Amino acid sequence: MSNYSELSREELQSLHSDLLTKYEDYKKKNLKLDMSRGKPAADQFDLVKELLDTVNSSSSLICENGMDCRNYGLMDGIPEAKRLLGEIMGVQPQEVIVGGNSSLNLMYDVISWAYTHGIRTGALPWCKLEKIKFLCPVPGYDRHFKITESFGIEMINVEMTSSGPDMDMVEKLAAQDESIKGIWCVPKYSNPQGITYSDETVRRMARMKTAAKDFIIMWDNAYSVHDLYPEDRDSLLNIMEECKKAGDPSRVIIFSSTSKISYSGAGLAGLASSEENIANIKKLMTVQTIGFDKINQLRHVRYFKNYEGILSHMDRQAQLLRPKFKAVLTAFEKGLAGKGIASWVCPKGGYFISLDVLPGCAQRVVSLCKEAGVVMTPAGATYPYGKDPKDQNIRVAPTYPTVAELEQAVELLVLCVELAAVEKLLG
Amino acid sequence: MSNYSELSREELQSLHSDLLTKYEDYKKKNLKLDMSRGKPAADQFDLVKELLDTVNSSSSLICENGMDCRNYGLMDGIPEAKRLLGEIMGVQPQEVIVGGNSSLNLMYDVISWAYTHGIRTGALPWCKLEKIKFLCPVPGYDRHFKITESFGIEMINVEMTSSGPDMDMVEKLAAQDESIKGIWCVPKYSNPQGITYSDETVRRMARMKTAAKDFIIMWDNAYSVHDLYPEDRDSLLNIMEECKKAGDPSRVIIFSSTSKISYSGAGLAGLASSEENIANIKKLMTVQTIGFDKINQLRHVRYFKNYEGILSHMDRQAQLLRPKFKAVLTAFEKGLAGKGIASWVCPKGGYFISLDVLPGCAQRVVSLCKEAGVVMTPAGATYPYGKDPKDQNIRVAPTYPTVAELEQAVELLVLCVELAAVEKLLG
Repeated sequence: MSNYSELSREELQSLHSDLLTKYEDYKKKNLKLDMSRGKPAADQFDLVKELLDTVNSSSSLICENGMDCRNYGLMDGIPEAKRLLGEIMGVQPQEVIVGGNSSLNLMYDVISWAYTHGIRTGALPWCKLEKIKFLCPVPGYDRHFKITESFGIEMINVEMTSSGPDMDMVEKLAAQDESIKGIWCVPKYSNPQGITYSDETVRRMARMKTAAKDFIIMWDNAYSVHDLYPEDRDSLLNIMEECKKAGDPSRVIIFSSTSKISYSGAGLAGLASSEENIANIKKLMTVQTIGFDKINQLRHVRYFKNYEGILSHMDRQAQLLRPKFKAVLTAFEKGLAGKGIASWVCPKGGYFISLDVLPGCAQRVVSLCKEAGVVMTPAGATYPYGKDPKDQNIRVAPTYPTVAELEQAVELLVLCVELAAVEKLLG
Repeated sequence: MSNYSELSREELQSLHSDLLTKYEDYKKKNLKLDMSRGKPAADQFDLVKELLDTVNSSSSLICENGMDCRNYGLMDGIPEAKRLLGEIMGVQPQEVIVGGNSSLNLMYDVISWAYTHGIRTGALPWCKLEKIKFLCPVPGYDRHFKITESFGIEMINVEMTSSGPDMDMVEKLAAQDESIKGIWCVPKYSNPQGITYSDETVRRMARMKTAAKDFIIMWDNAYSVHDLYPEDRDSLLNIMEECKKAGDPSRVIIFSSTSKISYSGAGLAGLASSEENIANIKKLMTVQTIGFDKINQLRHVRYFKNYEGILSHMDRQAQLLRPKFKAVLTAFEKGLAGKGIASWVCPKGGYFISLDVLPGCAQRVVSLCKEAGVVMTPAGATYPYGKDPKDQNIRVAPTYPTVAELEQAVELLVLCVELAAVEKLLG
C-alpha cells in the first residue's frame, strides 16, 4: 500500500471519488452501532451470574468478624472485602477502604474533600487557595478531566510516551509549581492507549520532588487485572511499595473497582492509601455516611474468594474480549497500515484502542462515522476541556458491540479515516 | 408519687441513700447493654429475607424500560425504583433521583455541592461567601449537625414545639438574614422526639419569606412509613405540593431511604425536588458517578412492588417494635411520673424516645448509666456542636435490644435519672 503523502493530486482525486462512493453506499445500510463507551457486553456479565446466588434468604449474613452485614457499621468495609480489594490493589487490608459501587465516585469524593477540607495531614482546603492545577497525561480518561474541570482546577497536558507520562515534564512541573496539587494516572493498560507505566516511570513518580506538600497521585488502576493475554500480562510496579521506599506513602491514592470484573454499577469499589491518609479519609467519610453495602461485599467475596479467583474469572473474560480487539486491529492493519495516515497501539489489556489520525482530522472522522450511523467517542474527549490540540486522537471502545457489528463499524471507521485524510491532503 | 421538689432535705438524703444502694447493686450485675443508636434489630431484617431471592442467576435483569441493570447507565435510577421512592416521598417519578444506599450520603452531597458549586439555579457556591448559617431545630439528629459543622456552617438552634420547629422564630430568622441558607427537618416522627410537623408548620415552611434566594429545606423524611400504630398513623402534609402552591418548589429537597425498611446499608436511598433542582443536581452528579446499584433497585421493587407493599411490611415491623417502645414508656411512667424530675414524649412512630431530665443532669445520667454498663447516646448529641445548653435531653433508642434487655436497661436509666435529680436537688 502506498503512502498517501506520496500520491499525486490526480491520484488523490481519483481515490477521493472512490472513497466517497463507498461511503455513500455505507450510508444506505442504515447502520446503528455504538463504539463510544467502554461498556462490557452482556456475555461478560453472564460469566458471573452465580455471584447473585451467593447470598439468598437461607444465607448467613454474618461476616468473618461476627458483624451482621444487614445492619449499620463497618464503614470502611467488611474484613474479607478489604482483603480482596487489597490483593487487587497490592496493599494491606488496613490501607483499604471499600466504598460503594463506583471508583469514579471515590475519586470525586477525594478531590471534593481535598477542595473543601484537605486530605493529607496539614493540607489547606483547596477552595481557600487562589489557584489549583493538576497534571493530566494525554490522551487520558475524560471523566477524570471532568472532575478537575468541575472544581475549576486548571489542567496541564503532559504527553504520554510508550512508558507512561513524559516524566521529565512531570518532574519539572511538579517541582517548580506549588499550585500543582496532583496528577491523574491510569497506570496499567491506560485509557485510551493501553500503555502500562514502566518500572522507571513508577519509581520516578514515587520519588520526584513536589513543590506542593499535599501533592496526590490519583492512581486509577482500573484495568489491573484486565489482561487480554493471560500468558503475557503487563506487569506494573507496586506504587505503594515504591512510595514507602521513597518515604512518602501518603502521596498516592489508589483506586480500583470490580465494575468491569463483576457488574458495572453493582460491583465493589475501593481506595487505598497510607494508613495516615486512610485515617484522615475515614474522619471525612464518617460525616458523609454510616457505611456502604456490605451485603454486596459479601456476595463478591463469596463468589471470587481471593485474587486467584479474580484472575481466573478475568481469563474467561479475556476469551470473550480477544476476538473483539483482534477484529479492530486486523481491520486497522488491513485498511490503514503503510498509508501514513494513522497510527495505533496494540494493547495487551484494558478497554480501548487509541487511534491517531492525521492532525486536524479526528473531528471530521468522528462526524463522518456518525453521519453513517456509527457513534464514536467524541473527538477531543480524551483531552482536558475536550480539546485535543492536534485534533488527532480517537478512542475506540471495542467491548460492547458483537464481533460482527465491530467488523462493520471498523470497516466504516477505516473508510472515514481514509476519506478525511484524502480531504486534508487535497487541502 | 410525690414531686421531688417538695421533699425536705432529710427526705432527699434518705432517698439518695436508697437510690445509691440500688445503683451499687446494679453495678454488680455487670450489664452490657447498648441503647445508643437507632439500629434495627435482627428480627426486623429477618422479615425481608426473601428480598434477597428476588434476583438470582435465573432472573431477568432487564428493567421496565428495557435496560440491562448489570451495565452502566440510568444514573438517576431505574423507572420502577423512581416510582416506588416517589410514592414514599409523595412526589412524581421525574422529581426523584435514586442514589446509592445512604440518604445521609445524599444529604452530605447536597450540602457539599451547594458549598462547592451551588445547587439552586443562580446560586453562588457557599465556599465563596463570608459566612453561611443553618437553622437547626433542637433537639435533632446529630449526623445532620455534623455535616453542617464539618463545612464550617454556623448552626442556630431553634426550639422544637409539639407541632414542629418554633415557626415564629424560623420565619423571623429566615426573613432577616441572607446568610441563613437552610434548615434541617425530620418532619415526621422527628429524631429524637417523635413529633410530626403540623399542617400549619408545613404550610408556613413552604410560604415563608427567606432573605437567601438559595434557601433550602433539607426535608429528611426518614420515618415517613415508620408508624407504630397502623390504625393511628400521624399524617404529614405534602411539602412538595405546598411549595408548588407557594410558587417555590425548588426550596425543598426531600430525602428518604429504605435503611430502616429493608437493610441498613443495603437499602435504597433517594432524593426528590423540583424538576429544575433535579436537572441541576443531575448535572453535578454526572461528574461524580456513572450510576448507582441498579440490581439492588430491582431487588427492592420486585420485593415490595409498590407503596402498599411497603406499608404492609412496615405494619409487620411495627408488631416487633411496639413492645419495645412500650417497655420504655411503661418504665418511665412507673418510675418517673409525678416526680417532677423528667418529661418525655410518647411517639406514634419513628425510632426514638426523647427524655428530658432536670436541667444540668443529662450528662450525669448518661455517665451513671455507662458506669453501670448501659451505653446511651452521649448527652448533648441531639444539639449542634454536641452542646445541649440546658444539659437536659437524652435520646433513648429502643429498637436494637430485646424487650428483656430493654426492661433491664430502662430500669437502670430510671434509677440514674432519679439519682442525678436528687443529687441536684441536694445541691
